[in-house]
Amino acid sequence: MEDPLTLALNLMGTFAFGLSGGILAVRKKMDLFGVLVLSVATGLGGGIMRDIILGHTPPATLSDWRYLAVAGLAGLLVFVWYSRVVQHGRFINAFDAVGLSIFTVTGTTIAINAGLSPAPAALLGMLTGVGGGVLRDILGAEVPLIFRSEVYAVASMLGAIIIIVASQTELSGIPAEIIAAIATFSLRMVSVRRGWRIPIAMPKPDPTC
Amino acid sequence: MEDPLTLALNLMGTFAFGLSGGILAVRKKMDLFGVLVLSVATGLGGGIMRDIILGHTPPATLSDWRYLAVAGLAGLLVFVWYSRVVQHGRFINAFDAVGLSIFTVTGTTIAINAGLSPAPAALLGMLTGVGGGVLRDILGAEVPLIFRSEVYAVASMLGAIIIIVASQTELSGIPAEIIAAIATFSLRMVSVRRGWRIPIAMPKPDPTC
Amino acid sequence: MEDPLTLALNLMGTFAFGLSGGILAVRKKMDLFGVLVLSVATGLGGGIMRDIILGHTPPATLSDWRYLAVAGLAGLLVFVWYSRVVQHGRFINAFDAVGLSIFTVTGTTIAINAGLSPAPAALLGMLTGVGGGVLRDILGAEVPLIFRSEVYAVASMLGAIIIIVASQTELSGIPAEIIAAIATFSLRMVSVRRGWRIPIAMPKPDPTC
Repeated sequence: MEDPLTLALNLMGTFAFGLSGGILAVRKKMDLFGVLVLSVATGLGGGIMRDIILGHTPPATLSDWRYLAVAGLAGLLVFVWYSRVVQHGRFINAFDAVGLSIFTVTGTTIAINAGLSPAPAALLGMLTGVGGGVLRDILGAEVPLIFRSEVYAVASMLGAIIIIVASQTELSGIPAEIIAAIATFSLRMVSVRRGWRIPIAMPKPDPTC
Repeated sequence: MEDPLTLALNLMGTFAFGLSGGILAVRKKMDLFGVLVLSVATGLGGGIMRDIILGHTPPATLSDWRYLAVAGLAGLLVFVWYSRVVQHGRFINAFDAVGLSIFTVTGTTIAINAGLSPAPAALLGMLTGVGGGVLRDILGAEVPLIFRSEVYAVASMLGAIIIIVASQTELSGIPAEIIAAIATFSLRMVSVRRGWRIPIAMPKPDPTC
Repeated sequence: MEDPLTLALNLMGTFAFGLSGGILAVRKKMDLFGVLVLSVATGLGGGIMRDIILGHTPPATLSDWRYLAVAGLAGLLVFVWYSRVVQHGRFINAFDAVGLSIFTVTGTTIAINAGLSPAPAALLGMLTGVGGGVLRDILGAEVPLIFRSEVYAVASMLGAIIIIVASQTELSGIPAEIIAAIATFSLRMVSVRRGWRIPIAMPKPDPTC
């Protein structure tokens, strides 16, 4: 059902998320197996959550063994060459942004095709994009990255909104998906480079904290 | 499929849970986006878990955009007027108890209609009632509130049991649901005001702790 | 659909996992209700995750009330006789390994029958085996045990691989399941007794930690 381009991009995204899962696992001093588990959970998590919520079972990332292989390979690479992998931090950020962009776009498109209305479809697309990372941080006992004041989920939201708007017009399909993915990728990368932050609420001191 | 009264109550419960999610997010110094994410996860989480487990996909709270809108609105209110919102702590507790009551009752009823036997149906009703709050605390990296010695899940269990018992008799439908919801609400509110606690086990000192 | 032997073993595994959930809850000073919740989540979690991912809803462990009863009973026993239960640590480890073995074997078999290819089927079998324990540790705000350098998930993987290999040959069905379960059980028990560990990556000091 997936065209070769989408499949290739999806696998690239899975690989990038797999790397990020493996890196957290090594930092947390997990063993080889823990590294692989966290790589696979991060790489496949978002797509599995999307398919479960839509009732598309078994999930696509489990029906096609290549997703599992790519995520596991990423974990193995991190385990063996950790020091080298983390030296290429900017490279990883770019891969990760590719994954975020692709998963957001394909997740939103699949949700629309499943008959969800615009706002829930956007929400499900974002869950596809950020879900793997949230699972990674929960398993690693960290407050999820998307909550730590970075323009991450916002970039995902931008891509989802573009897909939603396009689906209401004649500009849908591949062109809209490419535009949405580039927009998400660009916003994420620029915000990392510029250190953009989202405002946080500044409550007065609160004794119940 | 939902009658107007049930819909209105469900939306009120979603709003109350959305407030509680937003409040935790602000306390954890999350940005605007994190506040919205936690509001939506708390407001919709219980119902989504219930529908996924029953195979009712896509979940009702995603098919109807109003749930998402109400939960997001609650998060926005907390973000903008945090200090004012937390001043009305008792008011929020009441709203939260309304949500717990309604979600427990509707969750148990839906589980019975899906053919579950009594004990699992009660369990699923309780999951619907407390699930959003558990998700909120996991995402916020806290030990879930229901584990911290309060009469919270017990109130939910009371409501679920009333629905189960009623379903075996002639007294089912709207009257039973109202009685169950009032019982859950009352037990929760009285226990908060009186500071009721549930016993905890008192093990001897254990070196493996 | 379950033969009496499988049912008996499954219930034994549920009981063992229920004990482990209750023990963590007592150590975390949770109240009676928290102990029961954690017992049930640990005992039923793996099977529910498996059935949700495969689209087998409602999950088998909720359709049959005995699973819930056995897990709840385990929680109650821990709450009342905590000191005695933890004295039998070796006994619990054995029970837990029984549960891990059985759930891995039945999970992998069910995944193959649902049409998954070998690697994803093994992954899902392992998720069935270790899922309840992961849920237990997330709810208890601990880094999951499977990440803490023990031969736990590896034992599960061994059992899953045996089932996968057997399914491609004439040696499948009950004999293969028994061999796989014994292999998983033995590897787990021997590794606990001998203190076997899996290597962890030794990265150079990393300023971003």
